[in-house]
Amino acid sequence: MRIVMKFGGTSVGSTDAIRQVVEIVGNLARHHQVILVVSAMNAPDLRTTNSLIEAAHAAAAGDSSVAASIIPRLLNLHMRVAAELATPEERHTLEVQLGAMLDYVGDLSRSIAVLGELTPRALDQISGQGERCNARLIAATLRSAGVAAESVDATELIITDERYGDATPLMDETRQHSQARLLPLLEQHHVPVVTGFIGATRDGITTTLGRGGSDYSCAILGAALDADEVWFWKEVDGVLTSDPRVVPEARTLPALSYTEMAELSYYGANVLHPRTVYPLVQRNIPVCIRNTFNPEHPGTRISADEPPGTVKAVTAIRDASLITVGGPGMQGLRGVAARIFSAVARAGTNTLLITQASSEQNICLAVLRHEAVAAVAELRQELAHDLSYHDVEHIGVIEPVVIVAVVGSGMRGTPGIAGRVFDALGQSTINVIAIAQGSTENNISLVVSEQEGDAAVRAIHRAFIV
Amino acid sequence: MRIVMKFGGTSVGSTDAIRQVVEIVGNLARHHQVILVVSAMNAPDLRTTNSLIEAAHAAAAGDSSVAASIIPRLLNLHMRVAAELATPEERHTLEVQLGAMLDYVGDLSRSIAVLGELTPRALDQISGQGERCNARLIAATLRSAGVAAESVDATELIITDERYGDATPLMDETRQHSQARLLPLLEQHHVPVVTGFIGATRDGITTTLGRGGSDYSCAILGAALDADEVWFWKEVDGVLTSDPRVVPEARTLPALSYTEMAELSYYGANVLHPRTVYPLVQRNIPVCIRNTFNPEHPGTRISADEPPGTVKAVTAIRDASLITVGGPGMQGLRGVAARIFSAVARAGTNTLLITQASSEQNICLAVLRHEAVAAVAELRQELAHDLSYHDVEHIGVIEPVVIVAVVGSGMRGTPGIAGRVFDALGQSTINVIAIAQGSTENNISLVVSEQEGDAAVRAIHRAFIV
Amino acid sequence: MRIVMKFGGTSVGSTDAIRQVVEIVGNLARHHQVILVVSAMNAPDLRTTNSLIEAAHAAAAGDSSVAASIIPRLLNLHMRVAAELATPEERHTLEVQLGAMLDYVGDLSRSIAVLGELTPRALDQISGQGERCNARLIAATLRSAGVAAESVDATELIITDERYGDATPLMDETRQHSQARLLPLLEQHHVPVVTGFIGATRDGITTTLGRGGSDYSCAILGAALDADEVWFWKEVDGVLTSDPRVVPEARTLPALSYTEMAELSYYGANVLHPRTVYPLVQRNIPVCIRNTFNPEHPGTRISADEPPGTVKAVTAIRDASLITVGGPGMQGLRGVAARIFSAVARAGTNTLLITQASSEQNICLAVLRHEAVAAVAELRQELAHDLSYHDVEHIGVIEPVVIVAVVGSGMRGTPGIAGRVFDALGQSTINVIAIAQGSTENNISLVVSEQEGDAAVRAIHRAFIV
Amino acid sequence: MRIVMKFGGTSVGSTDAIRQVVEIVGNLARHHQVILVVSAMNAPDLRTTNSLIEAAHAAAAGDSSVAASIIPRLLNLHMRVAAELATPEERHTLEVQLGAMLDYVGDLSRSIAVLGELTPRALDQISGQGERCNARLIAATLRSAGVAAESVDATELIITDERYGDATPLMDETRQHSQARLLPLLEQHHVPVVTGFIGATRDGITTTLGRGGSDYSCAILGAALDADEVWFWKEVDGVLTSDPRVVPEARTLPALSYTEMAELSYYGANVLHPRTVYPLVQRNIPVCIRNTFNPEHPGTRISADEPPGTVKAVTAIRDASLITVGGPGMQGLRGVAARIFSAVARAGTNTLLITQASSEQNICLAVLRHEAVAAVAELRQELAHDLSYHDVEHIGVIEPVVIVAVVGSGMRGTPGIAGRVFDALGQSTINVIAIAQGSTENNISLVVSEQEGDAAVRAIHRAFIV
Repeated sequence: MRIVMKFGGTSVGSTDAIRQVVEIVGNLARHHQVILVVSAMNAPDLRTTNSLIEAAHAAAAGDSSVAASIIPRLLNLHMRVAAELATPEERHTLEVQLGAMLDYVGDLSRSIAVLGELTPRALDQISGQGERCNARLIAATLRSAGVAAESVDATELIITDERYGDATPLMDETRQHSQARLLPLLEQHHVPVVTGFIGATRDGITTTLGRGGSDYSCAILGAALDADEVWFWKEVDGVLTSDPRVVPEARTLPALSYTEMAELSYYGANVLHPRTVYPLVQRNIPVCIRNTFNPEHPGTRISADEPPGTVKAVTAIRDASLITVGGPGMQGLRGVAARIFSAVARAGTNTLLITQASSEQNICLAVLRHEAVAAVAELRQELAHDLSYHDVEHIGVIEPVVIVAVVGSGMRGTPGIAGRVFDALGQSTINVIAIAQGSTENNISLVVSEQEGDAAVRAIHRAFIV
Repeated sequence: MRIVMKFGGTSVGSTDAIRQVVEIVGNLARHHQVILVVSAMNAPDLRTTNSLIEAAHAAAAGDSSVAASIIPRLLNLHMRVAAELATPEERHTLEVQLGAMLDYVGDLSRSIAVLGELTPRALDQISGQGERCNARLIAATLRSAGVAAESVDATELIITDERYGDATPLMDETRQHSQARLLPLLEQHHVPVVTGFIGATRDGITTTLGRGGSDYSCAILGAALDADEVWFWKEVDGVLTSDPRVVPEARTLPALSYTEMAELSYYGANVLHPRTVYPLVQRNIPVCIRNTFNPEHPGTRISADEPPGTVKAVTAIRDASLITVGGPGMQGLRGVAARIFSAVARAGTNTLLITQASSEQNICLAVLRHEAVAAVAELRQELAHDLSYHDVEHIGVIEPVVIVAVVGSGMRGTPGIAGRVFDALGQSTINVIAIAQGSTENNISLVVSEQEGDAAVRAIHRAFIV
Repeated sequence: MRIVMKFGGTSVGSTDAIRQVVEIVGNLARHHQVILVVSAMNAPDLRTTNSLIEAAHAAAAGDSSVAASIIPRLLNLHMRVAAELATPEERHTLEVQLGAMLDYVGDLSRSIAVLGELTPRALDQISGQGERCNARLIAATLRSAGVAAESVDATELIITDERYGDATPLMDETRQHSQARLLPLLEQHHVPVVTGFIGATRDGITTTLGRGGSDYSCAILGAALDADEVWFWKEVDGVLTSDPRVVPEARTLPALSYTEMAELSYYGANVLHPRTVYPLVQRNIPVCIRNTFNPEHPGTRISADEPPGTVKAVTAIRDASLITVGGPGMQGLRGVAARIFSAVARAGTNTLLITQASSEQNICLAVLRHEAVAAVAELRQELAHDLSYHDVEHIGVIEPVVIVAVVGSGMRGTPGIAGRVFDALGQSTINVIAIAQGSTENNISLVVSEQEGDAAVRAIHRAFIV
Repeated sequence: MRIVMKFGGTSVGSTDAIRQVVEIVGNLARHHQVILVVSAMNAPDLRTTNSLIEAAHAAAAGDSSVAASIIPRLLNLHMRVAAELATPEERHTLEVQLGAMLDYVGDLSRSIAVLGELTPRALDQISGQGERCNARLIAATLRSAGVAAESVDATELIITDERYGDATPLMDETRQHSQARLLPLLEQHHVPVVTGFIGATRDGITTTLGRGGSDYSCAILGAALDADEVWFWKEVDGVLTSDPRVVPEARTLPALSYTEMAELSYYGANVLHPRTVYPLVQRNIPVCIRNTFNPEHPGTRISADEPPGTVKAVTAIRDASLITVGGPGMQGLRGVAARIFSAVARAGTNTLLITQASSEQNICLAVLRHEAVAAVAELRQELAHDLSYHDVEHIGVIEPVVIVAVVGSGMRGTPGIAGRVFDALGQSTINVIAIAQGSTENNISLVVSEQEGDAAVRAIHRAFIV
């Protein structure tokens, strides 16, 4: 089995964590082709990428001393791990390699300080160095543990456009480069340790990827290499049925469909953004979420298959506002929906939920509370004429509200689910302010007042998930 | 009590019907100030306004014989009623008046035929003559029955802009003219019989009103005269809880709030369009719907008050399509909702229901089935780029579907209603495809497949309305 | 030779004039194929088209008595001529025909009065009746004089679009209809007498032509029938070398090229607008201007050939203003010329002369004096920003000025002409304010102060034209 | 008298030249307040600014060796002069100062090489160093010759916006800073030696000026310091009446008006662009052009006064094309001029001359020959519709042509000048293709064929200028 896997920042943030990584990879590499994608090291006291970005900004303001002080600390951070996990020979080579990389950071920082400005391109050169260092460190520790491993810069694999800071991969070229560079390694049973977060233009200039960095790198490589599975190692066992702080009996889901994952992507850090894993969804490659610190746990497997059960999870978006635009003249006022959503888009607001019942007299939209004022201001301006002519009678806001999403693709075509959901709420005497269920039928979203939010989540969780 | 009331076309479509009108008005006028607004006569075999419009179009094509043949038939239609209900003196005067009016129709028709074109202005001059004739007939029959009555042309009362065929009243001037002309009559206990449908520009040129003709005239005059109530005489007892062809136990509602009426306005002919009665809602004037042929029945009274009860009525829009736009890239694609609704507006489509659940990955919109093809075509064009880049993955259509609307302002703030609605559906194993409930909480709309539509309406009706 | 010829309004405005027309046509028709295009009669006391238009406007205001009084006067106007020039039989037929046409005017007028509005289409129906009457009258007088003639409505020949009041001919269809209808008549040696000014849509509805009415009709038919020549009979001997009120020795030019005529078209009523005769220029059909009241005079022949001589004529446009936009920042201010001329176009101003010398610091443009204020206002608004930033320093106006145009295609490639022109002015100590000569080299335009305008014209005329 | 003066690049390009400068300034400074503005040194074998820019571009491509090799050469260039003209003490100090400046160039170059990109801001930092070095060198040589002098960076004086590479001065702040910094020096009889070409943002970041660099700096400071005169030292005696290669008898003009200079600004390198000296024209400060290598010659003085004489100079723009747009439909085609000039502006073309004679049928515009193809292509596209409808009949080009400009403000109001101009041409049998004279009457521009260009210039020069 060919597995592309990625360890997040804290999974590679300490000697213990990396020892764990080495053990996991060592075991897997015996039976599988393993490609490792690594982030920069995030130690509790030193977050590599953040400190590099900070140094770059300080340099732009003329102060290259921040870089000067960060460089030995970063070297030390990596070498401390190497001291425990790498052989003396590896340590020696590593020290030279990391020294050169960090010297380059110093050069960049001094150059930025001399010129007094920080361009997006310059920032990409600096901010991607953490991944480069870490890939070399992990490869060295793997080799020291007897695992044939080789660090590879993603600049050799992932070809992107030239939008520095938010680059998009050119998939055909990336596929070609990745296979040419990595397949020979895999055939020799070597483990490539690839830098996350970065790519390069056709001219070879380093870029950084938008859409969530290293996770995206891992998905790109999974797709480019036709992986059998792609694993994301996190600090949790997998995707939960609900937030355990609200629902103590929440538990890990063994399996999810892609669409369920997408529906859940708003909830918590443990779910992957659907845009991130889109290259995998397209090629139907299963995704696993597993726990670095509990590798025995099977985690959550996400694939095109729809696992049994109806409601899978209950999530909530807090601190939301419900904006209502309505009035007798709305009905038959052609184009008003377009104008409402144009106004909201101009305000730069994300719309979390929309609902317009059949009378056409009211359109409700939920937004994050801190974005509501700007959205309402734009709406008032857009509809000023209609408000004065009474075609639109009011623009109102209900807040704070919570959007509760009941997710599960098994709900589709199963009569009675909505009844059970609303029964559960009714029995808890929770008032439902707005409801939206789209035709995918794998998500019923409902809006309740903030003080009833937790109770609503718990009531529904209890009704469906034992 | 000052009551502005309107009898619809079939309520004034036969001798028997007009006898009924005379009796009703005669009784009411003893105790109340009554202002009558009348449509043109709609006899089963001769629909006045339609035949006038037909004559106008024939004239534009050069054939003024249609008018020539319609004129004696229209005169006869009115005089036949007069023969039974008017005194000989009234009959004589009426014949002269109606003769002059219909001669004018002949003149107009011949002029149009000579010039070979029919302008909106010319059409308004012809199409409003039916109301003029009928107002004089009704006034004559009232007087013949001993009720002091006087026909008044609305061109003296309702001042409009110059959009022939779809004129909008200028309310301040209309109020001034209406009070100056009608209050003296009311003080003398006379019943003004006012022509519906028409108004006049400031220069006195006849216009016809948009927004539903005579009903709108009635609402305008109700507001302009500060009526205590405005009554619409129809051929039914009032607003029903559901369509009796689907739900045999459907019954007449004694009272409704304005907002409930607005929610119901999509259902059946017996409910007034909220734009039509907007002048009354603004001034908080109650509206009654009563049965010309069952005047003892108290009908349905519609006002700002919210009558007791939770769910008032269950309605359905048939022949609908549910359009879904979705895909992983939709999430975070700023402005996509605005673009979707702009495309739909360009297609000239009315959106009956909108729903987007919290994942932001799908927007569903229901439209009338015959408008779906055009809407989808516009959507495909608008989103072509995004579809090719997989930001948007699909534009799908589910059809035929039925939108069931559960209406009642008592639902607001009453927990458990949604539960009962969906329970009722679940027990009938009806699958709910999409749900929308806006924050006014007086309407839960849900989409079901066409074959389950009637069952859904019945199930909910039985659950709530005894 | 096939000759399409047109007699203007005053050439057909009295018995004497028409007798003249009959004689001319009679003589020509013996040896040539003659097609006559006639305007409506313009008697000194009754201008037919104007009085019809006046009657139409009066009708729109509800007064059809104007038409009622004009109709017998128009009938009388035509029949008075017929009394002297037509046989009794022709008179009788004519009276019936003209009676019917004028009755139709009465019908139209009454219809407009009934409907109370005058549409462009209705105006075209009325305003084209004068040509119809006159074509019949002229045909009758010709026949009475023994010339086989037949009146033909141009509605059978000239097919146009539906822009009532300013219709454009559809040349292919017009050519087809004209040849099909007229060639058989010509073969029988008949003289078709065609109505000027009007055409008809494909549906046969009468339209009136833009671009100068009957002259345009004549040019269209000349082109459609592949005429050998097209003659315009006027009240002058031909095109003059200058305005005889200014230059007593001005004389008639025997020949002109099309381009010279175009250059002269701004001067006086006797020259045809180049757009009017464009169908003839395209087909290289010579145009003659001849004098109805002096038919022996050969007139001026206008063709593609360039007649000998250098300067042909000296003309002047009086009451002009010279607008100057300038300043140091203009040089290198990209797009400023486009902005200047956009502003002038927005003001609806015709630009008579433009000049910008090589320094790029000043653009001068001459306009009619009554249009200067609006043009300057638009320029000030357009350039407000540049004026405040001193990129443009001033917008000035010199007025009143006269634009003197020295015209002659023989100037092209003949060195020394400009020297003689400016020498002549210098010797008369006339100051030249601005000069423009374009690369066609058949026109030197110069701007002088109003009080020096006549002297400038005379000085140049004397220098070149004996 | 307070004189701001500037020596151009070759005036400060060698030991001999700088010795000359020192002598001139030394003499003037005895009796006047002198402010010196200096460019970077332009030695025949080493052009400072160009070599700095070249080094910057090489650095961006990763090669910092170009800078490394240029730095000692630049140091040597300046120190060689110092070796002859500066005292040992001054030399020593200078070497330190210049060393630091050129080290900074090295730093910048290396930083650009490290980052691999050259921003406009970085280019401005490098390209302005030449002026800094030279100001210090000149100040040192002046002091060594006993003239109290002090170098001042214009970054302390001229405050600009942030458009790097093409900055615009903020005049109020510049005036304030310049007076505060320089007036005290002038009161102590010191000569400030100010760097040309550069300024600084409010934050103190170096910018370079658009609009002709050091000349503009000199004009800005002249205006900011209320100079009595501003002198530009060049390598010629002043402005000539014509190009001496064409007209051997051409001679230097003792005086010119601002407007005459503006008209002449297209001709040759010795005339200042009107935008450059605009700050001086605004404040009515006379400008002198004098010869560094012939300081006894009084040069040409340019002021608001109009010196006697009619025609002052005859200039020519070679390699031009005359584009003609014309056709019968142009007349009355509203907005066509705006469309023509918009098209030309879109093509990025400068219009050197425009002429449209009174018939409105042709618009001629002259452009540089290498820009004609693009302009004609844009015109064809813009007018495609009109060309196909024959409203516009042709877009033609005559080339190569020469635009001859006859300049002199004394021409205004003097009759007979144009006659003499065109007589002179006629006697030489030169054909004039187009003429434009604007209302300022200080420029008659005419277009002749290329082979007649020189003859035309000579003929006119001989006719007016002895």
